[in-house]
Amino acid sequence: MATNNPAPPDSTRRSERSRRAIYDAAIALVVEVGYPKTTIEGIAARAGVGKQTIYRWWPSKADVLLEAFLDLSEQAARAAGQEPESGGAYGIPDTGDLAADLKLVLRATVDELRDPAFEAPSRALAAEGVVNEELGRRFVAQLLEPSLQLYVDRLRSAQEAGGVRPDVDPRIALELFVSPLAQRWLQYTGPISYEYTDTLVDYALNGLAPR
Amino acid sequence: MATNNPAPPDSTRRSERSRRAIYDAAIALVVEVGYPKTTIEGIAARAGVGKQTIYRWWPSKADVLLEAFLDLSEQAARAAGQEPESGGAYGIPDTGDLAADLKLVLRATVDELRDPAFEAPSRALAAEGVVNEELGRRFVAQLLEPSLQLYVDRLRSAQEAGGVRPDVDPRIALELFVSPLAQRWLQYTGPISYEYTDTLVDYALNGLAPR
Repeated sequence: MATNNPAPPDSTRRSERSRRAIYDAAIALVVEVGYPKTTIEGIAARAGVGKQTIYRWWPSKADVLLEAFLDLSEQAARAAGQEPESGGAYGIPDTGDLAADLKLVLRATVDELRDPAFEAPSRALAAEGVVNEELGRRFVAQLLEPSLQLYVDRLRSAQEAGGVRPDVDPRIALELFVSPLAQRWLQYTGPISYEYTDTLVDYALNGLAPR
Repeated sequence: MATNNPAPPDSTRRSERSRRAIYDAAIALVVEVGYPKTTIEGIAARAGVGKQTIYRWWPSKADVLLEAFLDLSEQAARAAGQEPESGGAYGIPDTGDLAADLKLVLRATVDELRDPAFEAPSRALAAEGVVNEELGRRFVAQLLEPSLQLYVDRLRSAQEAGGVRPDVDPRIALELFVSPLAQRWLQYTGPISYEYTDTLVDYALNGLAPR
């Protein structure tokens, strides 16, 4: 009796609707009142669900927020035109031209950082991470490090192809182009543009000293 | 009737004592309650001065805090063994060996970032700067950019000496070793050590591609 593309049962649709409302409420609240004053009660009230519904799915407000941000990042990446790989992660292309591949991904990151839907909540969570080490470390482990590992993979592949010196540590190397963009965005230390991130890649790959 | 090394008149000593008490109170409060809840009234009460004393010297709490931080940074730089130049700024040595000079200054920055007297208040102000663009921009203009300009000067001198390519923009180039350290510190993205900052300098100067 199975039909093609069956509609999900009512309870699944209701759950999905609640989950979306909870994400939206958590993101909106952290922007409006900051992380310390965001509470499970506040999220539940704004989402129109009972707080037990939230506690049934997530152990703490940090867990709700981190999952809401993961969802938001995926939306922002899709909005910036990136396509998920089979595993769901947004990969870095490997065309054989390392500079071109890095520039492409960093330009997409520039678009993402400028997306208003992404910027305010990301700033609220990042600001709390600066003074709240435990949250900061979870934020990095769950939201940031998985993206950084994509650069590690791409740099390793470049090492195998001979485009990056074999003694270079990819986890440190990626910071030469990722961290300047992150600091300009986080601390308003300078403007962000495609030209800027292209320059970072050229400097990082070729070095500052004469060749 | 002048004497050598005269004691300052009582009112100057009293002013200096009040100024110091106000700095200490402002720094302590921003650590304890965060920037938004730090008030001129709170600083005055904690410092044991009238709030009119504060308003006579500073137009706003942001001004008090930025000056208190400037003072704190100078103390931290002195504690890390750096000597001010004639103008009062902490310069970067120019021994002719760019890599060695940069490594020395970045190691002193590692010490400064690990100084507990410096870390908590710096984090409180940096966190506020992430979500408060006006404060963030003042923080950068008054506290961070003057230090970054010292790297610009050192890199320009290296360009004149032929150790850095003439087409490199020094204001962007410095970010290749300064921003990774800043991001690891701000966001807990990785451990900070002398070995790490030495590696950043080597990668930035020599590049990641084979030479």
